[in-house]
Amino acid sequence: MSSHGIVLFGHGARDPRWAEPFERLAARLRGAGSAASPAPLVSLAFLELMTPSLGDAVAAQVAAGCARITVVPVFFGQGGHVRRDLPQLVDACRAAHPGVEIRCATAVGEDDGVLDAIARYCLDQLGSDDA
Amino acid sequence: MSSHGIVLFGHGARDPRWAEPFERLAARLRGAGSAASPAPLVSLAFLELMTPSLGDAVAAQVAAGCARITVVPVFFGQGGHVRRDLPQLVDACRAAHPGVEIRCATAVGEDDGVLDAIARYCLDQLGSDDA
Repeated sequence: MSSHGIVLFGHGARDPRWAEPFERLAARLRGAGSAASPAPLVSLAFLELMTPSLGDAVAAQVAAGCARITVVPVFFGQGGHVRRDLPQLVDACRAAHPGVEIRCATAVGEDDGVLDAIARYCLDQLGSDDA
Repeated sequence: MSSHGIVLFGHGARDPRWAEPFERLAARLRGAGSAASPAPLVSLAFLELMTPSLGDAVAAQVAAGCARITVVPVFFGQGGHVRRDLPQLVDACRAAHPGVEIRCATAVGEDDGVLDAIARYCLDQLGSDDA
């Protein structure tokens, strides 16, 4: 049983295929454990149009024994969803589970390593199928 | 003058700060040139709520002398915006500029390197401020 959980929080969309990269990301994280550092419990959660909600995902992790949960917004920019909606949702989770430490990371698109990887991908697009 | 352009196509948001990672990404790409391979012309474009539109961004690159333009959807998943709205917008650009080669990449969130970087970022969040 993992004592630390990660919830990957995305916007959600009508097309179920939209969530595929989130599933692949979750699979990577589930495979990231080692003897010294067990893999975290990893869940997806969505703001709208897809389930589960953040509240349901956090409740499931708490029920599974997580004492610390880190919510990672899988958004490029920190717009209204990340700046306004998400803090309210996280506050509601904290109120519902006062014994659990629930932290919220900065949006992934703000990270330099992520931006570097996106930049590499963009440049690869220029070079590919040049023939 | 660049003969190859990149248009970073994002959703757009009401909060202008949302676009900050896109600006940082564009700055990285503009700095990526070398003597052998000049930096591409890099523009942003948005589906809604922000300007310019894809059509305006492409027209500006054509006016600047780009003969080849690669549109990169800066989206995590391939939902309706990428699968339905974007191809229509790209087709309109091709019709408006028949002498220009306009290509469209897969969404950045589908790229393994980008997903690896996001996974690293997520794991970093677990380890940080553990004290």
